[in-house]
Amino acid sequence: MKPTSHQHRVVIVGAGFGGLEAARHLGNQSVDVTLIDRSNHHVFQPLLYQVAGAALDISQIAWPIRRVLHRFKNITTLMAEVNGVDVAGKAVLLTDGSRIPYDTLVLATGATHAYFGHDEWARYAPGLKTLGDALAIRQHLLTLFEQAEREPDPAKRQLLQTIVVIGAGATGVELACTIAELAHEEIHGDFRHVDTRKARVVLVEAASRVLSGFPEPLADYAQHTMERLGVNVLLNHPVTECREDGVVCKDQFIGAGAVFWAAGVRASPVAQWLGVLADRAGRVKVEPDLSVTAQPEIFVIGDAATVEQKNGKPVPGLAPAAKQEGRYVADVIKARLRNSALPPPFRYRNYGNLSTIGKHTAVVDFGKVRLRGRPAWILWAIAHIYFLIGVRNRLLVALNWLWLYIKGDRAARIIISRKS
Amino acid sequence: MKPTSHQHRVVIVGAGFGGLEAARHLGNQSVDVTLIDRSNHHVFQPLLYQVAGAALDISQIAWPIRRVLHRFKNITTLMAEVNGVDVAGKAVLLTDGSRIPYDTLVLATGATHAYFGHDEWARYAPGLKTLGDALAIRQHLLTLFEQAEREPDPAKRQLLQTIVVIGAGATGVELACTIAELAHEEIHGDFRHVDTRKARVVLVEAASRVLSGFPEPLADYAQHTMERLGVNVLLNHPVTECREDGVVCKDQFIGAGAVFWAAGVRASPVAQWLGVLADRAGRVKVEPDLSVTAQPEIFVIGDAATVEQKNGKPVPGLAPAAKQEGRYVADVIKARLRNSALPPPFRYRNYGNLSTIGKHTAVVDFGKVRLRGRPAWILWAIAHIYFLIGVRNRLLVALNWLWLYIKGDRAARIIISRKS
Repeated sequence: MKPTSHQHRVVIVGAGFGGLEAARHLGNQSVDVTLIDRSNHHVFQPLLYQVAGAALDISQIAWPIRRVLHRFKNITTLMAEVNGVDVAGKAVLLTDGSRIPYDTLVLATGATHAYFGHDEWARYAPGLKTLGDALAIRQHLLTLFEQAEREPDPAKRQLLQTIVVIGAGATGVELACTIAELAHEEIHGDFRHVDTRKARVVLVEAASRVLSGFPEPLADYAQHTMERLGVNVLLNHPVTECREDGVVCKDQFIGAGAVFWAAGVRASPVAQWLGVLADRAGRVKVEPDLSVTAQPEIFVIGDAATVEQKNGKPVPGLAPAAKQEGRYVADVIKARLRNSALPPPFRYRNYGNLSTIGKHTAVVDFGKVRLRGRPAWILWAIAHIYFLIGVRNRLLVALNWLWLYIKGDRAARIIISRKS
Repeated sequence: MKPTSHQHRVVIVGAGFGGLEAARHLGNQSVDVTLIDRSNHHVFQPLLYQVAGAALDISQIAWPIRRVLHRFKNITTLMAEVNGVDVAGKAVLLTDGSRIPYDTLVLATGATHAYFGHDEWARYAPGLKTLGDALAIRQHLLTLFEQAEREPDPAKRQLLQTIVVIGAGATGVELACTIAELAHEEIHGDFRHVDTRKARVVLVEAASRVLSGFPEPLADYAQHTMERLGVNVLLNHPVTECREDGVVCKDQFIGAGAVFWAAGVRASPVAQWLGVLADRAGRVKVEPDLSVTAQPEIFVIGDAATVEQKNGKPVPGLAPAAKQEGRYVADVIKARLRNSALPPPFRYRNYGNLSTIGKHTAVVDFGKVRLRGRPAWILWAIAHIYFLIGVRNRLLVALNWLWLYIKGDRAARIIISRKS
């Protein structure tokens, strides 16, 4: 655990898209890198909803971090939980009490669900940020239909088959669509007493439209497509209460067997660790080179940070943005160590924004060019398979999708308990 | 949930190899079948050790029961837990208080770990019977190496890297070998501080030989092969205590980071449910037609039962035996309903007994013909892929094995918690 004293020590916290990319670009350089994450794996978050929907299995979108980085002998991976930074003493603090000293620190700790000050809702409306979340949602969802099959009372059976998704951003839309397709198109033939085609999937949104990150024509198209898939979209319905048996929104109670949360995120508590100010979503506002104001040796990237673009808008909280920031920070660190010219301020390159609407259509926004329907879906599928790590996982995911699309057969409809 | 009154009602409890096979052979017959299992999936148990060893993911060896049976419209699948049988009233009792009436009952509830009267050992030495067990073992195993990587004290580090497997039957041998290969051959390059090639894998056995189900020459070969793989085989070492920090066997304490149990099984409590006598392992001794003595409408099959062969030996507790029994019972039920000639007493056909010794060798016993080494392994791999359900899973497992064998890269090294 002792870094050699003569080498510059970079500590990266978080192995999401930003942290992993920063580590890779510091790989096999003359710098001592320690990558710390509380889990042992990197997750391809854009496909988490497919694990929740039982279409993919966990290992198909997750990779052991130390395996991904094993060829970089200057990188040490630690599975540990960070709970603070000693800025003056230049050390990261772990929950087990130990300290990891750094010369340069990259904080890439991401964001988690935010319940608008109602943390007690988390029990009733779990969100979708980690593999553990995705498995919990999958288990809950699959168990509902099993319970419905055994339920003699038709009213209770319909209640069990009512699933509410809160928040119509990309995650909420994708989750609601995959649940609707599962129930309405794929599994109904497997049951004898319950008709899963009558399952009700409700997507609740406080704003007046879905997919606020997309231009309005694409969002309208997405909404119509979702409604054709059988998703009940309720706009202008801010949620005022989440309960065990459903949600209250706009003075209306919707009884449900399950409620899932895709409404808001909050940055991890990096600002507190550093003793700096955060914006409303908890993000640290960083300098144009992604460093913390007056702390040039500390960088914050990805969903934990906010940085303005030239047009005055913040860089969006998307995987490609986090990856670009990770790479940029690695370049800054390398330039500083070599005393070479520093790169110009960070500039986000928008290669397009994509969201699926079920398993046959998608919307893609390239800025000037917009795509929708099946061509957009094909582009989405190719892009997502391309960005998976490793040939095996690409083959496995492609194979699973092929079966799902041809045979309507989801691979991962497995409820796990210690007993079974 | 109301079966039509005019049809004969068969209730099958347990969707392992025996129960699922019985259900399939009653599929699309004029009989009303209800298959009850406490989980929603059938597991291919012979490959569970590969899930525990992170080589395969759960959905590759598990199938939703209702999906496997969905084309048989006369079969209803229920995910529910059975805790008794009302023999006089002809009904199966569920833990939720409901009753499932039957005309014919097939109990195929299998076996679970037995700790020789020391149930308190279960916490310290978990066994491997279910997917939940396999995931728990996988998480424990992977976490050990993560802890060792962070442990500065070399003695503690070596203790974390000591793994004891109790019981040298096929499960124990396969589990010990897969752990040894994982540590010694595959993951060492991913760590910087711990040398996983120095991990100690100890296989502890009370008897004087390994693989008691195989002829002695094959068992000797297996033992030598295991020792070459770096498994420390301790014969004549009955375990007298399992503790959190290791095991005591033959007055010797072996400190360990993990202890796994593969030493004994006990039939599920079918005998108690029926109020009949059981043998020492809890199995119901059934008639030559696999029915319960004086209860011709109740059958017990698979690991919950014991039935003598012509040679006086009991039918072995293997997957092929359970499948043959399931099919036989379906034939008896169909013959009774048609009033046609009953099949002759059940006869087990031994198509061979197989066990892998690591990822390149195996032992195969066909009775007169015996195979070992790589040819045996190839036969084992073909047989196991053949017996998986569905083309997709065969492809996925074959692909995972290919990567493991060529690149030493296990797909499923993922530690899951709700946080990650």
